Amino acid sequence: MSLIKVGLVGIGAQMQENLLPSLLQMQDLRITAACDSNLDRALQIRRYLSDTPVFDNVPAMLDTMQLDAVIMAGPPQLHYEMGLLAMRKGVHVFVEKPPCATLEELETLIDAARHSKVVAGVGMNFKFARPVSQLREMTKAEEFGDILHIQLNHYANKPRAPLWGLDSTLRSFLLAQAIHTIDLAVTFGKGELQKVQSSVQRHDDALIVKVEMAFSSGATASLLAGTTFPYFEFDMKLVSSSSTLVELDNLWNITLHEPEHATRPTGAAKRWRGAWQPGPLDSGYERSGYHGELHQFFEAMRKPQRYEADFASLLPTYHVIEEICANDAAAQGKQNIQSKIRTGIESLSL
Amino acid sequence: MSLIKVGLVGIGAQMQENLLPSLLQMQDLRITAACDSNLDRALQIRRYLSDTPVFDNVPAMLDTMQLDAVIMAGPPQLHYEMGLLAMRKGVHVFVEKPPCATLEELETLIDAARHSKVVAGVGMNFKFARPVSQLREMTKAEEFGDILHIQLNHYANKPRAPLWGLDSTLRSFLLAQAIHTIDLAVTFGKGELQKVQSSVQRHDDALIVKVEMAFSSGATASLLAGTTFPYFEFDMKLVSSSSTLVELDNLWNITLHEPEHATRPTGAAKRWRGAWQPGPLDSGYERSGYHGELHQFFEAMRKPQRYEADFASLLPTYHVIEEICANDAAAQGKQNIQSKIRTGIESLSL
Amino acid sequence: MSLIKVGLVGIGAQMQENLLPSLLQMQDLRITAACDSNLDRALQIRRYLSDTPVFDNVPAMLDTMQLDAVIMAGPPQLHYEMGLLAMRKGVHVFVEKPPCATLEELETLIDAARHSKVVAGVGMNFKFARPVSQLREMTKAEEFGDILHIQLNHYANKPRAPLWGLDSTLRSFLLAQAIHTIDLAVTFGKGELQKVQSSVQRHDDALIVKVEMAFSSGATASLLAGTTFPYFEFDMKLVSSSSTLVELDNLWNITLHEPEHATRPTGAAKRWRGAWQPGPLDSGYERSGYHGELHQFFEAMRKPQRYEADFASLLPTYHVIEEICANDAAAQGKQNIQSKIRTGIESLSL
Amino acid sequence: MSLIKVGLVGIGAQMQENLLPSLLQMQDLRITAACDSNLDRALQIRRYLSDTPVFDNVPAMLDTMQLDAVIMAGPPQLHYEMGLLAMRKGVHVFVEKPPCATLEELETLIDAARHSKVVAGVGMNFKFARPVSQLREMTKAEEFGDILHIQLNHYANKPRAPLWGLDSTLRSFLLAQAIHTIDLAVTFGKGELQKVQSSVQRHDDALIVKVEMAFSSGATASLLAGTTFPYFEFDMKLVSSSSTLVELDNLWNITLHEPEHATRPTGAAKRWRGAWQPGPLDSGYERSGYHGELHQFFEAMRKPQRYEADFASLLPTYHVIEEICANDAAAQGKQNIQSKIRTGIESLSL
Repeated sequence: MSLIKVGLVGIGAQMQENLLPSLLQMQDLRITAACDSNLDRALQIRRYLSDTPVFDNVPAMLDTMQLDAVIMAGPPQLHYEMGLLAMRKGVHVFVEKPPCATLEELETLIDAARHSKVVAGVGMNFKFARPVSQLREMTKAEEFGDILHIQLNHYANKPRAPLWGLDSTLRSFLLAQAIHTIDLAVTFGKGELQKVQSSVQRHDDALIVKVEMAFSSGATASLLAGTTFPYFEFDMKLVSSSSTLVELDNLWNITLHEPEHATRPTGAAKRWRGAWQPGPLDSGYERSGYHGELHQFFEAMRKPQRYEADFASLLPTYHVIEEICANDAAAQGKQNIQSKIRTGIESLSL
Repeated sequence: MSLIKVGLVGIGAQMQENLLPSLLQMQDLRITAACDSNLDRALQIRRYLSDTPVFDNVPAMLDTMQLDAVIMAGPPQLHYEMGLLAMRKGVHVFVEKPPCATLEELETLIDAARHSKVVAGVGMNFKFARPVSQLREMTKAEEFGDILHIQLNHYANKPRAPLWGLDSTLRSFLLAQAIHTIDLAVTFGKGELQKVQSSVQRHDDALIVKVEMAFSSGATASLLAGTTFPYFEFDMKLVSSSSTLVELDNLWNITLHEPEHATRPTGAAKRWRGAWQPGPLDSGYERSGYHGELHQFFEAMRKPQRYEADFASLLPTYHVIEEICANDAAAQGKQNIQSKIRTGIESLSL
Repeated sequence: MSLIKVGLVGIGAQMQENLLPSLLQMQDLRITAACDSNLDRALQIRRYLSDTPVFDNVPAMLDTMQLDAVIMAGPPQLHYEMGLLAMRKGVHVFVEKPPCATLEELETLIDAARHSKVVAGVGMNFKFARPVSQLREMTKAEEFGDILHIQLNHYANKPRAPLWGLDSTLRSFLLAQAIHTIDLAVTFGKGELQKVQSSVQRHDDALIVKVEMAFSSGATASLLAGTTFPYFEFDMKLVSSSSTLVELDNLWNITLHEPEHATRPTGAAKRWRGAWQPGPLDSGYERSGYHGELHQFFEAMRKPQRYEADFASLLPTYHVIEEICANDAAAQGKQNIQSKIRTGIESLSL
Repeated sequence: MSLIKVGLVGIGAQMQENLLPSLLQMQDLRITAACDSNLDRALQIRRYLSDTPVFDNVPAMLDTMQLDAVIMAGPPQLHYEMGLLAMRKGVHVFVEKPPCATLEELETLIDAARHSKVVAGVGMNFKFARPVSQLREMTKAEEFGDILHIQLNHYANKPRAPLWGLDSTLRSFLLAQAIHTIDLAVTFGKGELQKVQSSVQRHDDALIVKVEMAFSSGATASLLAGTTFPYFEFDMKLVSSSSTLVELDNLWNITLHEPEHATRPTGAAKRWRGAWQPGPLDSGYERSGYHGELHQFFEAMRKPQRYEADFASLLPTYHVIEEICANDAAAQGKQNIQSKIRTGIESLSL
């Protein structure tokens, strides 16, 4: 498998803007087929690569072509069903997030991956983003101490209605957006997820979701996420046992506050902090993680070894998502009962 | 009372660095006495004001001098006891935070203020800080919409041991530090405080405190506060129903994110935001709120009218403080029982 | 002279907002007289200090009161004439900038100060501002190396017309505004000022002034200053022989770029830099330099010793100002001649 | 020419990291040959594109393959000589900067391009960088007014020795680095370049170069560039006749200061400014300009039309570079004469 043969599934915006460009610049990899239920869209691959065979359904592509891996970017139903199919056929599978709509489906995917022995995983690009990698490296240093708390803010402005034929805007938001930041909480939280508390506020069709998580490492995490914001932005903070606070702003700038920070001319002095920013010509797909998520996927195929963002790695994240939905359903149920009681009282009082 | 006569109590760092300079630059106000249990320290007032009478106890000062108001900066026991005494004597009272150690004591102060009919209150300078005033003004504008959520981060590095003879580091931290940010949550939360959830993490002698609050306005607030940080800093965010997010960084910079933000040459365009920062020569005590808290106190005396930071205004804040302490005691109790059980089991298993 | 007796001259905005509050919080100093050509304004001092004698002319005040020093905040003519008078009477003199309108007048002031042996100087608050002091300290460290270049940007929006009865907007702007940043160039440039180049652009009644300076230390300085900006802001950068670049933004934030910058958890790593910002409660008049300029003036009186911002210290700054004005007059002269020639040619060609 | 056939020349870091990835994601374009004097390096193309013919010299590639365009990334001698050859053969030519070592050579390239009628140009990616495009758009708006002044700071840490066999570190630095920022000055300066003043400071093997430019539009530009800095960064400021100041920090953040800036909840209020930053997932080669420079080159081939960064567009930039070198030679000559005179005097005084 020195030259990996890849089939693409779902030739939409995410594929054309982020995954395809990342794949094209990878060494020893060839895109040998493209598939989209809309064949015209599948044909767009030929603007980049002449004569690439195209398909309007995945089974046909898998049967016709000798593929080492499929890369999918579509709705979760596609990722789930065609992911299962591809794994059963022994083809390595990389799907965009979300891989599926429920924890139950995720468990099926995990099982299938285990049985098929392929490398399978999900495009959790935040986890592979360069500044997040820097943070992960940094938190491994003894001088950083232990992570005590993680604060994550995820500012989104959509979805305001259910996606992918689901019936819940909340679940759609969690699967489409918050999945990344929950996954970061799990990544930095370390140990086992032990406790989840959550609440959901609604304003018109917009949501604010708050989640508290606790991990067996002793670390806790807070997430503020929602769709009441003007545009997508993101920040996170890590608090450690060595009185160090590190902030990441929008996958761009890192600020590190520590008790004794020094420059050469000032020596250690109060209120000095370390700040990092990317170079002015920083380009490509490494900072945003699209390169890293794919690069490590193919590395895992080549070695072979476990892929860090495999389906199993998302188990705690889906547990959190299910918990948030269940808590919200319970809270809404309670409210409904209360408003029924109130309505009843009002009826009585007439 | 065109010229207000003021007696100072507690001539330490906070008095000399912030309150005294603010008082000296106020019009139609005279400092006519100074009191400190350490008479040498009381005498330091004469470096600023010749011949000022000095005292080593408050009752003597109150009996000797005709004072309109006393300004105190000492431990909570002093504020509480001498505050009660001054109010009983019909003297207006302004004390540094914290005014007292418990909710019960606060209620006594509230009662005393009501009966004595003096103006009485606490130096909640954050609430009067200029950028906080700007935020308060901003949130009144119809275009801002309703506040849905408030996020407050309070980064401190002390106290690591109990203060003022109290037996709890947690309570000391809440009274000395977090009181400000809890008060900001109450200020922006609006309506009645309806719910408090809290948890405390400990690492060596350092604390991380997380608090969730809900208000009758529908707004919620989250506070992250603690003593695990390298130096004191602070930030807050307000999320509104008009998809506006406003951030305050350290009582310095304000950033306002809104769905449609425009400059003259660009028109409304995505990812533009409004940013405010103080002028380079911004000086004095207005930005930090020390001027505003005192100025409004004397205004309330003059009109007369209610002082915004009166003892009663701190009721919800002390409720939150008591709740945090009680929740923590309960959690520690449970843990103790569990570790006893565990110890028991271990004994048994031997 | 353990208790310094001070007379104030010019009780306007600058006095009431910055100098008076700074003076009031100084130890062992008393304001014993106030003078303003508008006696009502002079009387405003009594809102702060009862019974202070007031005057409507400086000679009367100097004759009547035993003053150690006068602090003046008025037009340059006042500073110049009354400064000379006070010095002749052996009274120490502190004047707001500008001390006078021309280099010639400055030389007269310098002479007078030398003969009278009083401490005399000018309110160059930028030079005494806390972050500027930090920079000065920093640049003394061996690790900083030698300053190679200083870049100063001075963004102003006024004056758009001549001030103080002068006939030049350019000179007015230089005396009222750019004097500070030219003085910073001189302060950090070190050694003797050896060369000045300048040019002035005009747009309607607004100016852009560019100045290049060279010093015997080998350092150079560039100043961009003008009145075409929306509001007053300021920044400066220092480039050193150790490949260090330090930036000061608006008397607030300092950023230090150095070849090897480290944090404890990352070690030395590329693109990390040191950043400093003032604490959230930073208050008073130290950051802006109003406290420092006066504090050091009185220290110089007490020791006695040379005052750093004495009249002589402004010699290079006034040389630069005269040079800019002369260069501009020459450039305008040339232009006038050219337009006359052009007009002549046009006449001929008719 | 619906499908453009491209040959690559120079398969080093710049080609593999920036140009090749940008080319691979362009529609209707095929890389059909690769050339490098080191054939092993040329063969690296096959890790991305199987079976691509490779060459170790450009004439052979041009003779063998039917190419529409060549893209070169090598030393200026290669760009110059092989650029001339390719143009003579009617092949469109895109070369990395610098296209050649001298103004004289540039004029030869301009002539050749004119005669051959091909599209030819240089990879001036800064000019095509997305935030620079935003600035160019912004400055076209009537509300922006006219550009009065441009300030450019170019912080580099190399070269410290001559490149490409040249004998001047200064010329090497200008061609390798400052060419971008001089080109930005020319781009925003508008009209004809009328005046250049420059000076060079040396410290060990490091340089600081200062350049003042004036344009027929009335705009002026100042450039501070050098190799005394710890790492490459960049910033620029534009001052306009409408009292607007716009800053670009490192091809990342834009800040726009204007006299009346408003947010919805605050209305127009002082010291508010507009700030823009890229989204957290901003990826690819558009922000840095590598995509734009190539995209517009191929657009120019397709239409056909003039390419904005053609050889002729660099005439003013090379004039500035020659002027800087000549001024520096003159200054060094003068210094040499002076030191000779001094040496003479010293000899005499013996």
